[in-house]
Amino acid sequence: MKIGFIGLGIMGRPMALNLKNAGHDLFVPERGSLTPEIRAAATVCPTAKAVAEHSEVLIIMVPDTPDVGAVLFGPAGAAEGLKKGSLVIDMSSISPIETREYAARVAEKGCDYLDAPVSGGEVGAKNAALTIMVGGPDAAFARAKPLFEAMGKNITPVGSEPGAGQVCKVANQIIVALNIQAVSEALVFASKAGVDPGKVRQAISGGFASSRILELHAERMINGTFNPGFKIKLHQKDLNLALSSAKALDLALPNTAIAQQMFSACIAHGAAELDHSALITAIEGLADHSIRGKK
Amino acid sequence: MKIGFIGLGIMGRPMALNLKNAGHDLFVPERGSLTPEIRAAATVCPTAKAVAEHSEVLIIMVPDTPDVGAVLFGPAGAAEGLKKGSLVIDMSSISPIETREYAARVAEKGCDYLDAPVSGGEVGAKNAALTIMVGGPDAAFARAKPLFEAMGKNITPVGSEPGAGQVCKVANQIIVALNIQAVSEALVFASKAGVDPGKVRQAISGGFASSRILELHAERMINGTFNPGFKIKLHQKDLNLALSSAKALDLALPNTAIAQQMFSACIAHGAAELDHSALITAIEGLADHSIRGKK
Repeated sequence: MKIGFIGLGIMGRPMALNLKNAGHDLFVPERGSLTPEIRAAATVCPTAKAVAEHSEVLIIMVPDTPDVGAVLFGPAGAAEGLKKGSLVIDMSSISPIETREYAARVAEKGCDYLDAPVSGGEVGAKNAALTIMVGGPDAAFARAKPLFEAMGKNITPVGSEPGAGQVCKVANQIIVALNIQAVSEALVFASKAGVDPGKVRQAISGGFASSRILELHAERMINGTFNPGFKIKLHQKDLNLALSSAKALDLALPNTAIAQQMFSACIAHGAAELDHSALITAIEGLADHSIRGKK
Repeated sequence: MKIGFIGLGIMGRPMALNLKNAGHDLFVPERGSLTPEIRAAATVCPTAKAVAEHSEVLIIMVPDTPDVGAVLFGPAGAAEGLKKGSLVIDMSSISPIETREYAARVAEKGCDYLDAPVSGGEVGAKNAALTIMVGGPDAAFARAKPLFEAMGKNITPVGSEPGAGQVCKVANQIIVALNIQAVSEALVFASKAGVDPGKVRQAISGGFASSRILELHAERMINGTFNPGFKIKLHQKDLNLALSSAKALDLALPNTAIAQQMFSACIAHGAAELDHSALITAIEGLADHSIRGKK
């Protein structure tokens, strides 16, 4: 299949190469940052519009909501080049609200739209093991499924309405952030009360407190190994999406709001590029106490 | 071994019977609520003091901090009957702060003290599969270990200071409550945004959001099956312990404080006896929206 791929960063590169390895033809827009590997694997086009003109399916994997808007509807944007009957798949993690608008504008061109954000990080992208949460019409999902299978493993259609995939991704990021804060509050509490947080983690693993975060991130917290991983500034962005969407829905998410504030405190202290498990440093800051025995 | 056992409720009864089945002699105080099975298994004594007089090891399993105080130091309390060299094991879930005081007063009698709260509920108690988190001196732990092994499986000494077990239990309950609130906020968000919470749960299980709570409690939330399980009023008590201890330690636990307030809101709506997964009804109440499609 002829696939346009826009957004060839840390995530997009291995995803595009997995599609190439599955036998598809890649078309990408010219950027100074294209790697030799991508240049060898793809046909490089001058603009997003030109990429769309060559593609049956256009995949977008860019950082944030306005980036998707610019790719589609900016000058020489993809929407200008989309052929009737093409399929646009936005795999970025962006606002569910704007996604509905983007999908409607793409539908006006006679094209289908899926929102299909992922989780699993760079490792999941390289190993074609991403979790993919898909919103959009069933027929479009069926058409895209072989492509998803070349990039991911746990592929779930979560709703036929545009934005359903983004809603699911935001829900995922809410849980991950709040589970990180849960472990942070518990370990700071234990440490301040004079108990070794590593022993606490060992004692409670396997019970109702068990989680992937207790398994992986608690160890990072205890050792102070905050190299990413998943960066605080990106998780902050995801919680901003959660809160702006919640505001639009007249919804109160009190602990999500607090976790977003804790990420803000981390960023204020220069931790934007650290792993999201470093949220614990904001909780430690509130108590002027480090679980690692140094201040 | 001669074991006094005080507190023969839903948890204490099967724990005591497991000790009996392991070959120990049980001594219990007279209560109208003693079951025929316990009366057949144990020597019934008139008071806690008399139980202590007969025992090498005294186990306490009562609801709350003042109850432990009353058992030990009330009129005809166990402390009056403790023989020098006896071991007191408090398996209740109570305040780490008061635990230190109780341990010091028991030490004045020439006795050892362990705090050894459990998790795993009635099922874990019956199956001798409790998680047991133990604080207190190593030698006392070694002496108690065969008894713990008759009642539980994951048995961890978390610190030699009195109260370390209680600190660990509180940390556990913080994580469990906050993971429940995490799943609650995520599912209410998804549902209000028009996405099926069951599909969200399916899509994100197995990733970084995975937890025992997402596995078990999310299903209860989606189905509205809030029969306990673990009652809101008990988890509320545990978060009260967390917050009062945190206050004594000059510690801010913002999301724990919010979750405690959500449990209070549940109790205000008559949900004290429901399973703690019903915390979601407080989040739903904030939004005037039920994820189960009815109000």
